[in-house]
Amino acid sequence: MKIYDFKLAPNPRRVRIFLAEKGLKVPLEEIDIMKGVNRQAQFLRINPLGGIPVLELDDGRYLAESVAICRYFEELHPEPALFGKGAFERATIEMWNRRMEFSVFTPIGMVWAHLHELTRTRVKQIPEVGEQQKKVVEMRYRWLDEELGQREFIAGDKYSIADITGMVAIDFAKFNNISIAPEYKHLQRWHQAVSARPSAAA
Amino acid sequence: MKIYDFKLAPNPRRVRIFLAEKGLKVPLEEIDIMKGVNRQAQFLRINPLGGIPVLELDDGRYLAESVAICRYFEELHPEPALFGKGAFERATIEMWNRRMEFSVFTPIGMVWAHLHELTRTRVKQIPEVGEQQKKVVEMRYRWLDEELGQREFIAGDKYSIADITGMVAIDFAKFNNISIAPEYKHLQRWHQAVSARPSAAA
Repeated sequence: MKIYDFKLAPNPRRVRIFLAEKGLKVPLEEIDIMKGVNRQAQFLRINPLGGIPVLELDDGRYLAESVAICRYFEELHPEPALFGKGAFERATIEMWNRRMEFSVFTPIGMVWAHLHELTRTRVKQIPEVGEQQKKVVEMRYRWLDEELGQREFIAGDKYSIADITGMVAIDFAKFNNISIAPEYKHLQRWHQAVSARPSAAA
Repeated sequence: MKIYDFKLAPNPRRVRIFLAEKGLKVPLEEIDIMKGVNRQAQFLRINPLGGIPVLELDDGRYLAESVAICRYFEELHPEPALFGKGAFERATIEMWNRRMEFSVFTPIGMVWAHLHELTRTRVKQIPEVGEQQKKVVEMRYRWLDEELGQREFIAGDKYSIADITGMVAIDFAKFNNISIAPEYKHLQRWHQAVSARPSAAA
């Protein structure tokens, strides 16, 4: 078993943190996406969409998509339950993980794609999109700050995969020069707490 | 229990089809998003992000996000298993559902947001984004056609939530004047099969 990884990219980091929280170790193989190795024929046979991470099983089967890989490990190693337990808790964590993906991570990813100098040679940038999405991120941080004034973690009183997605997205935003404003004290408090966990360095 | 719904929008349709496949009936309450009812204070107390569908439980709790709502019903009514059974199958269906969301539905949604006349008064459109994303949709349809040449359904030999997401996305694309090209025979075959299921009319 091994994971096709890229140390600097946000999505593989989600899986590494998830495994660290589970106390699991899986060998990693670095795929340099900045050099386009994931767009070459050899890697496209592993994942035709070119995305990383990808989990390769010992029988030669593959699983792509960070959350699908995490769910596979959750099924095999249920504790600690990072997707929750019971119908309502599991659905609530799914809701919050998706909110972190679609409403926080996605606009941050569009700022990266349309404004960052490192993507300039690889995609046709439309800076207006990046500026528009920066404002969306700001609105979402304000909303998240209010939410985190009501409970300890993103999805409730327990750390979950939604915290992993949220932290990785917000750290990726920092890489794109978007910081958490000092007045968002609840969001700051939460970010410091999740960043202090040993898993955050994975 | 009830679901805040909007008959014409793609995401609530995913949940209605899922429930029809399970043989479940849940009362629906129409929220007219074209009139902005989901952006008014009363609805924002139910879902601060304004999205639909939302499931309201009898005890007053809420669940937003289509797939979170579907997962809740899957936990309560496991058969037929639309999220799969066993670690690898469940992870594989998760992978394919996410590919349908991020790689097919998302670019279609951006065509809608940036090109359709019905969104013109509600968002700041950037037509270049819509044109760029139309090309992405075309690439993804070609890829899906190859994939569906290898098996009956999106995620394997059984109908799953990934088929629901894929069909709803592709039907929404039609509403945005994007059709499946006649040469994509496998994609056509699959689309006709899933559309012929009684659930497709839900």
